[in-house]
Amino acid sequence: MRGFFISVEGSDGSGKSTQIRKIEEYLRKMKQEVLLTREPGGTTISEKIRELLLDPSNKGMAAKTEMLLYAAARAQHVEEFIVPNLEQGKNILTDRFTDSSIAYQGFGREMGEVVAEVNRMATGGLLPDITFYLELPPEEGIARKKTEINHKLDRLELEKQEFHQKVYHGYKELCHMHAQRIMKIDASQDIETVFAQIQAGLDRLFGF
Amino acid sequence: MRGFFISVEGSDGSGKSTQIRKIEEYLRKMKQEVLLTREPGGTTISEKIRELLLDPSNKGMAAKTEMLLYAAARAQHVEEFIVPNLEQGKNILTDRFTDSSIAYQGFGREMGEVVAEVNRMATGGLLPDITFYLELPPEEGIARKKTEINHKLDRLELEKQEFHQKVYHGYKELCHMHAQRIMKIDASQDIETVFAQIQAGLDRLFGF
Repeated sequence: MRGFFISVEGSDGSGKSTQIRKIEEYLRKMKQEVLLTREPGGTTISEKIRELLLDPSNKGMAAKTEMLLYAAARAQHVEEFIVPNLEQGKNILTDRFTDSSIAYQGFGREMGEVVAEVNRMATGGLLPDITFYLELPPEEGIARKKTEINHKLDRLELEKQEFHQKVYHGYKELCHMHAQRIMKIDASQDIETVFAQIQAGLDRLFGF
Repeated sequence: MRGFFISVEGSDGSGKSTQIRKIEEYLRKMKQEVLLTREPGGTTISEKIRELLLDPSNKGMAAKTEMLLYAAARAQHVEEFIVPNLEQGKNILTDRFTDSSIAYQGFGREMGEVVAEVNRMATGGLLPDITFYLELPPEEGIARKKTEINHKLDRLELEKQEFHQKVYHGYKELCHMHAQRIMKIDASQDIETVFAQIQAGLDRLFGF
């Protein structure tokens, strides 16, 4: 039995980390083994690529370079970690996957269809069984992040507001294109209300 | 006046570095400004990607990851260094370019046409005005490298002989496909004989 592949998407500040912890807790309670991972990252090589991507000193990075580095990290993650574990029957819960690249690079940086093409190659066409997208208007997400004590804004977070609006629009398009796979949830609601909707999605997927 | 874009290709041990020095010397003698660069590398970000690629501790790197990292380094190199300098009328001499990816990843790792596609995107279709390919049977190139004092074989050099045979065949195909651009030179000849042929190519390109 192949495991299930679950991704959580949304802008920074949308509450992804909190909901991921709650998903993990719930699945363990339901006696399901689940492995947590994140993108970019999840393997030693992918984490090294992550460092390049998030290092503020690399602010002169070209949009194409950025997109290819995300795809490179993802290719390694899929081949070394995700696929072998799914094949061993383990469930995988990832903080971000290809949808992030399409939203941030394809829409945010206006790179278009090439992002989906490169990522289809990088992943061998692998897509999550279910994706929880925590939707939050960009102004609100950034405001949340800024109130966190000692939170230093990383390179992407420093990008201008307009970029975040395009990403937000990109996710809307993705939800429309993949209505079966992506469950869109209003992340401005309180934590438990958000999780109740996620739980319904998990119950359906696992047949609880 | 746009500068000329010149690449030198060939397996390790084929004498690339020596011939690059001689090309630089000759062009300076002919009062031509020339900037030397190399791949992967040529910019700060691309050199960081180079470190990942050549680090022997990353030997578990997936073929797709490797290919995408080379393309990422190249995208940055083209956008930040090569194109702006060519547009300012400077000539660029690079140690390796897209042909290396097609030979090593496309043919050597049997990834096929996707390598050319990804690289067309990464470079915006930029190709050298002339490419000098120093052809040497793989056995001979590796033997040369091993005799260098204190030379530590890097990750790619440690790959098995069969891989190098496929790369060699890949370059042959490239020479056939791009007969106008690529000048194939028998690198088993002595240094001056090799350079005489390169010089003929340069004289034609620059109209000396």
